[in-house]
Amino acid sequence: MDNKQLTVLLEKMTLEEKIAQMLQLVVSYFVGSEEDGQITGPMESLGISEETVDQVGSALGLGGAAKVIQVQQTHLKNDRLGIPMLFMADIIHGYKTIFPIPLAIGCSWDQELAEQSAIIAAKEAAVSGLHVTFAPMVDLVRDPRWGRVMESTGEDPYLNSLFARSFVRGFQGDDLTSDVNRVAACVKHFAAYGAGEAGREYNTVDLSERQLREYYLPSYKAALDEGCELVMTSFNTVHGSPATGNRALMRDLLRTEWGFDGVLISDWGAVIELIAHGVAEDEEQAAYLAVQAGVDIEMMTSCYVKYLPELVRSGKVDESLIDEAVLRILNLKNKLGLFENPLRGADPLAEEEIVFCDEHRAVSRELASKSCVLLKNTGVLPLQPEQRVALIGPFAQSKDILGPWSWLGAEEDIMPLDKAIQEKITSSNVFVTEGSGIDAMTEEQMQEALDIASHSDVIVLALGESSPMSGEGGSRSDITLPEAQLQLIAHLQTLNKPMVVVLFNGRPLDLRGVHDQVDAVLEAWFPGSEGASAITDILYGDVNPSGRLSMSFPQAVGQIPVYYNHYNTGRPKKESEPDNRYASQFLDIPNEPLFPFGYGLSYTEFKYGEMVLSAEEMTSDRPLQITTTITNTGYKAGEEVVQLYVRDITGEVVRPMKELKAYSKVLLQAGECKEVSFTVTEEQLRYHHYDLSYTSDAGEFAVFVGSNSRDVVERRFRLLK
Amino acid sequence: MDNKQLTVLLEKMTLEEKIAQMLQLVVSYFVGSEEDGQITGPMESLGISEETVDQVGSALGLGGAAKVIQVQQTHLKNDRLGIPMLFMADIIHGYKTIFPIPLAIGCSWDQELAEQSAIIAAKEAAVSGLHVTFAPMVDLVRDPRWGRVMESTGEDPYLNSLFARSFVRGFQGDDLTSDVNRVAACVKHFAAYGAGEAGREYNTVDLSERQLREYYLPSYKAALDEGCELVMTSFNTVHGSPATGNRALMRDLLRTEWGFDGVLISDWGAVIELIAHGVAEDEEQAAYLAVQAGVDIEMMTSCYVKYLPELVRSGKVDESLIDEAVLRILNLKNKLGLFENPLRGADPLAEEEIVFCDEHRAVSRELASKSCVLLKNTGVLPLQPEQRVALIGPFAQSKDILGPWSWLGAEEDIMPLDKAIQEKITSSNVFVTEGSGIDAMTEEQMQEALDIASHSDVIVLALGESSPMSGEGGSRSDITLPEAQLQLIAHLQTLNKPMVVVLFNGRPLDLRGVHDQVDAVLEAWFPGSEGASAITDILYGDVNPSGRLSMSFPQAVGQIPVYYNHYNTGRPKKESEPDNRYASQFLDIPNEPLFPFGYGLSYTEFKYGEMVLSAEEMTSDRPLQITTTITNTGYKAGEEVVQLYVRDITGEVVRPMKELKAYSKVLLQAGECKEVSFTVTEEQLRYHHYDLSYTSDAGEFAVFVGSNSRDVVERRFRLLK
Repeated sequence: MDNKQLTVLLEKMTLEEKIAQMLQLVVSYFVGSEEDGQITGPMESLGISEETVDQVGSALGLGGAAKVIQVQQTHLKNDRLGIPMLFMADIIHGYKTIFPIPLAIGCSWDQELAEQSAIIAAKEAAVSGLHVTFAPMVDLVRDPRWGRVMESTGEDPYLNSLFARSFVRGFQGDDLTSDVNRVAACVKHFAAYGAGEAGREYNTVDLSERQLREYYLPSYKAALDEGCELVMTSFNTVHGSPATGNRALMRDLLRTEWGFDGVLISDWGAVIELIAHGVAEDEEQAAYLAVQAGVDIEMMTSCYVKYLPELVRSGKVDESLIDEAVLRILNLKNKLGLFENPLRGADPLAEEEIVFCDEHRAVSRELASKSCVLLKNTGVLPLQPEQRVALIGPFAQSKDILGPWSWLGAEEDIMPLDKAIQEKITSSNVFVTEGSGIDAMTEEQMQEALDIASHSDVIVLALGESSPMSGEGGSRSDITLPEAQLQLIAHLQTLNKPMVVVLFNGRPLDLRGVHDQVDAVLEAWFPGSEGASAITDILYGDVNPSGRLSMSFPQAVGQIPVYYNHYNTGRPKKESEPDNRYASQFLDIPNEPLFPFGYGLSYTEFKYGEMVLSAEEMTSDRPLQITTTITNTGYKAGEEVVQLYVRDITGEVVRPMKELKAYSKVLLQAGECKEVSFTVTEEQLRYHHYDLSYTSDAGEFAVFVGSNSRDVVERRFRLLK
Repeated sequence: MDNKQLTVLLEKMTLEEKIAQMLQLVVSYFVGSEEDGQITGPMESLGISEETVDQVGSALGLGGAAKVIQVQQTHLKNDRLGIPMLFMADIIHGYKTIFPIPLAIGCSWDQELAEQSAIIAAKEAAVSGLHVTFAPMVDLVRDPRWGRVMESTGEDPYLNSLFARSFVRGFQGDDLTSDVNRVAACVKHFAAYGAGEAGREYNTVDLSERQLREYYLPSYKAALDEGCELVMTSFNTVHGSPATGNRALMRDLLRTEWGFDGVLISDWGAVIELIAHGVAEDEEQAAYLAVQAGVDIEMMTSCYVKYLPELVRSGKVDESLIDEAVLRILNLKNKLGLFENPLRGADPLAEEEIVFCDEHRAVSRELASKSCVLLKNTGVLPLQPEQRVALIGPFAQSKDILGPWSWLGAEEDIMPLDKAIQEKITSSNVFVTEGSGIDAMTEEQMQEALDIASHSDVIVLALGESSPMSGEGGSRSDITLPEAQLQLIAHLQTLNKPMVVVLFNGRPLDLRGVHDQVDAVLEAWFPGSEGASAITDILYGDVNPSGRLSMSFPQAVGQIPVYYNHYNTGRPKKESEPDNRYASQFLDIPNEPLFPFGYGLSYTEFKYGEMVLSAEEMTSDRPLQITTTITNTGYKAGEEVVQLYVRDITGEVVRPMKELKAYSKVLLQAGECKEVSFTVTEEQLRYHHYDLSYTSDAGEFAVFVGSNSRDVVERRFRLLK
C-alpha cells in the first residue's frame, strides 16, 4: 500500500476498530492457538468482547508457522476490513537456536557475530510466522543485583550503542518489505529500566537529566538511528513519572526531539500499572495518560479499548491522537508487507529446515566461545586430554544452560558439559558427579565428590545460578554463589588439587569464596544451545578465550554500584597515601572492582608497544590519530581487544575518569605483531554541559590504550577550538 | 556597630585585607596555640605569608578559653584594623559533655532534649571561647554504609527538619549579640552530601531535581528558616557540579530563591578540591568558581588569598563580589558582638565550672536513655538485680562509647558499662570478660567467655563497631558486626542461656547473626559521656526504653537503599500473591526492612483505640482533625511515639507510600489512656509536581496512625479544592 491507501483504510475504520488496533493480546485469546506463550506479567481479567478480539491489532507470544497461519487466517475472516494482525514475541537471544545471553554477547565485543546472531534469530522467527521481536534490550546496567542484567550488554553507553545497532541491523536488515527473513526490532525499555533502585526488579528510578542523557539514553538513540521500527516503554519512573504515561519523555523527547515516528508499545500491563504507580486513579485515566504520552499499543490490558472510545466521544482525547497511533501501526504492517502477504515468511516446511539447523548452531557455538571470559588462570588451563578430570557441580550434567528468555530453546536439544567433555577426550579420563545442587548439598553428594576428586589430576567445578535466579523477576540481594556451592569449593580445596571453576550465571557475581580459592575461573554465563561444546573447546585449548567483561565484577555486594566510568570525586584515593582516612573509599575493600570492565585473560600474552599520537593538539578539522603495536609474545594464536579510553581533564561539569571511545579486536598468531590505529574526533569529546548543551571544551585530555579499563598506557593531548 | 560603621570599616580595608577575611586556617597557624585541633582533611602546603596569617578572618579547631584569648589578643595586635577573628569548631554532639551521636538523638524523637543538648554544647563551647559550631549536620541519609550517617538524624525529611530547627534554636538562642552563652550555627553540608553513591565517603551524588527538592533540601531550609547564621558547602557534586563551585545551587537557589544572606563557608579543602573534581584546571580557576558561586570563606586552602587579588585587579572577578562576602563575614562578627567584645564568652574561670558539669552530664544521661532503641525482647529484659550476669564483649569494659566527632570528650571521664552495672547491682552478681576484640578473638578469650557465661543466669553481650568504623571517612561495604563478634554470639549461643545484645555503633547494621540468635537487642548507638549509666538504667528497668528508629535497618547489605517513604512501583508485591515472580522484589529477602523507620519496643504495651477523623473531606480552610486514644495496657509507665503518616493516592508524579507528617511522644502510666490529636492541613499535602511547582492535588488521601511506619491503622479522606 502507499500512504494514501493507508489513509483511505484509516478513514474506513470505526473508532472501535481503530482502538482495537491499539490493543495487543497474548495468543491464548485467539482461535487456533493451543498454548499460552510465556506469560511474564500479571494476567488481568480484561473484560473485552469477542468482537474486539476479532479486530485486535496484534498478538504476543505465538510461535510456529502453522499456528500463526491458522490464527491469521481466522482473523482475516473475522475482521471486517481484513487488516492482518501483527505477531510479536520476545526473541531475545535466539528463537530456537539459542545464543549466549546478551550480557555474554556483550563480552564478545564482536559486533559482526552479534549481528549474525540476530540475523539467525530473525530468520528462525520469521519463518515461524513472527513479525516483530521485543529486542534488543539496550538498558545500561550498573547493578548486578538486577536479574534482568542478563538481557543487557553491560555498563557502557558506547559498547551498548554498538550492540544496539548490530542487533537492529541483524533483526531488520535493509528492507523489511522484501526480506521476509527479517523481523522488525523493538528497542526496550525506554527509558532507564536498568537503573532501578537497589537492583530490585521494577523499582523506582531516579536520575538527573544529565545522567539520563549522558549514560542511559545513547543506546536507545543508537538503535533508532539504525532504523529500529518500534520502541517499548519501561516499567519504571523517569523523573517521577512512570515511563508509560510520561509525556515529556515520550512526546517531547522521543517523538519531537528525536523524531521517532514508529510504533511505541507499552510493556506487559504497563498502562494499567499507572494506577499502582499512583498517577492514574482508574483505568480511564491510565488510558488517557498513556495515549497522551503517545503509546500506540497497549500490551495485555484493556484500558484503551474500554475507555478510549468514550474519551474521544466526550472530546477529552482528540481523535487525531488515535488516528496518528493507528496510522503508525498500519504503517508498520505495511512495511512488513502484510497487506499484500499477510502470512509473510510463515512457512511450515521451510521452518523444519531452517530452525535449529546445523549452520545456526555453529554460529551459536562460535559466539559462545567468544563470550566466555577467562577471569583467572594460574596456568592450570588449558587442560590436557591425558589428565584425569573430576567434573563436579550442579552444572556438570545440567541442561539449564540456555538462560532466561530462551522461549523455544528446548532442553532436549542441549548437550550438557559432561557429554561435551566426553566427546572431546577419552571418557575414561572423565569422572562426573553433581557434588551439590544449586543451593543444597547432601553428605552423600559431598563424599562422592571428594571420592572422585581424590582420584583425579584436576578438578573442574561447574557452578552457578539456575536460570530463574536471574532474568525478569530475578533480582537477588546476595549475589554470591549459593552457600552449598561455596561449601563444595571449600571441601574440595582441602585436597590440594588444581581446581578450575566454570561459572554458569546471568550476572556479575560476588566471587568471594570462589576466585580466591581456585586456580582458574572461566565465566561462561548462560552460553546457549552449543555452550557446553564451546566451553570444552576453551577448557582444552582448541579455542583461546577472548571474551572481555562488559560489566565490572564487584569486590562484594556492598560495593555496588561499581563501574569503570565513574567520576574522580574531590578526594580520590591516592596510591601514595594509603593511610589517608579522608579519601573517597571504604574501610574494608578497595575502590576498584574485582575484575574491571574490559577485563579478560587469554592463553597467550599480548605486549603493547609505544603509543604514538599524531599530534599533541587536535581540532575539529584535525582529528587525532593514535597508533600502537600489539605483539603476541606467547606461543598460541589469540585475539586481543585493544581498548581506547578518553578522559576530559577539566570540564564544566565533572567528567568520567575514563570513557571507552573505540576498540579493535585483533587476531595475532604466536609471535605476530600488528599495528592498531584509532582516530579521536572532536565529536567524541562532546558531553552534556550544565545546561545540557552537547558540546566539547577546549583543553587537556588524557587518552588511554590498553587491554582493559584498568591496565592502560596514558598520554595527553589538547583540543583547540 | 551599625551597618554604616561596617561599611566604613570595609572601605578602610585593602583588597588583601578583605580577602584574608575570606580565609580560615586551622589553629596551628596561630601564635599561642599549641595544638593541632582535629584535622579532617588533607593538609596542604598553603604557601601563604605571615602577613596574611595576621589578617586572617577566622580560625578552626581551637578550644579552651585561655588559648582563644591569647590567640585573639595576639591577632588584634597584629591586624592593622583590629578586626577580631572568628573561632569555629566542630561541636557536633557536645563540647566536652558528649551527648549521644546525632543518629541516636534522632531516635529520641525528643525535640526539647535535642535543643537542650545544643544549648549545653553551645554554653560549654562559648565559655571556652568559640563563636561558631559546624553543626547541625542535617543531611538526609538512606545508605547506612556511609560512615557519616552517625552525624545525621536519619532518613526522613520532616523529622530531620524538626531536629535541624531544634539544634539551631539550641545553639543560637534568640540573640547572639546579647547571649554570650550561645554560638552561631552552621548548617551542613549543602547539599545532599548524604546521598553519595554506594554510601562511599565523598562519592558522587546524582539525584533528580525533584528528589533533591522533595527529600534532601527541606532540612537545610528548615535550619535557615530557624535563623541559622552559616551554611557549609558539601564535598559532593550536585547535578554534575561540585557544590563548592556550583553557582546554580549556591547563588540561584540558596541566595536568590531562599534569600540566605549569611556566611557560606566551604568544607575543609573543598575549594582546592574543585581541581580533583575536574571542574577547575588550577587554584586560580578554583578560586574563581568558588567566589562566583558565592562561597564567602575558604577553609584550609589558600586559593582565595593567592589568586583573588589578581583576579579582581584584572577585572575577571568584580570587587563587589569580594565586598559582599566580606560584609557578610563582618556582619557575623558584629552579630556575635565581637567588635565590642572580641573575647565574647571566653572565660577560663567559668569554663572550669561550666564545662562537663553535673547538670550537663545529667541531661546527657537523660538523652542517652531516650535514644536507645529496644529492637527485640522476648521477655528477658528488664534484668533482675538478683540475676547473675555475664557481661561479655569488646564493649563490656570499653570507654570508646562517645562516638566520632567527640572532639573534647575524654575517655578518662567515661564510665564503662561494667562499672555502671556494678554500681547498679551488687558486684558479686556481675562477671565480666572481653570475649573478643572488635574484630579478632583468641581461643583464650573464648574459653573465658564460655566459662563465666556457663556460671551465669543471663548473658549480656556488649558488641559493636569501634568509633573509627563510622564517622567521616568511615564507610563500610559490609555493615554486619565483625566476624569475631558473630562467632562470639554463635559460641555462647550453644549454652542455651538467655542472651541480651547491647549494640554500640554508628549506623544501622546488617544484623544477620545477631537478632536471629539472641533474646533481646538494645541498640545503644554511641551513647555519649553518660551512656553506660543510661544503658544500665534501661537494662534494669529503671528507665523504660522509648527510642524509635529514625532510619531503617536493612535485612542485608544487599537490600540497600531501603527506606520507609518509597514509592509503590507499578508492580508492588502483594501479600495475596506470594508466588508472583513478576512483582517488585528480591528472590532472597523480603522488601521490608528488618526494623522499619519509627520502630522501637517498650517494656509495656500500648493499645491504639479507634481513629476518628473530623470529616471525610477537607479543604485548605477546613483542616482535618485526627484523634485516637492510646492506652498503656501493661504494668509499667512508658512513652509511646504516636506517629501520623499520609499518602497521596494519586499524584501527578509518583508519591511515597507513607510520609511522616506529625507525631506525639506521650507518657502513659500503667493502665492510663490518653487522647492524641493531630491536624492535617492542605499545606502538609503539597509536593513538587512535574514542573517542580509545590502544590497539592484534590483527591483521595490515606492517613495512617500507629507506633511505627509499618504497624498502622489506615483511613481515607479527600482533599477538595
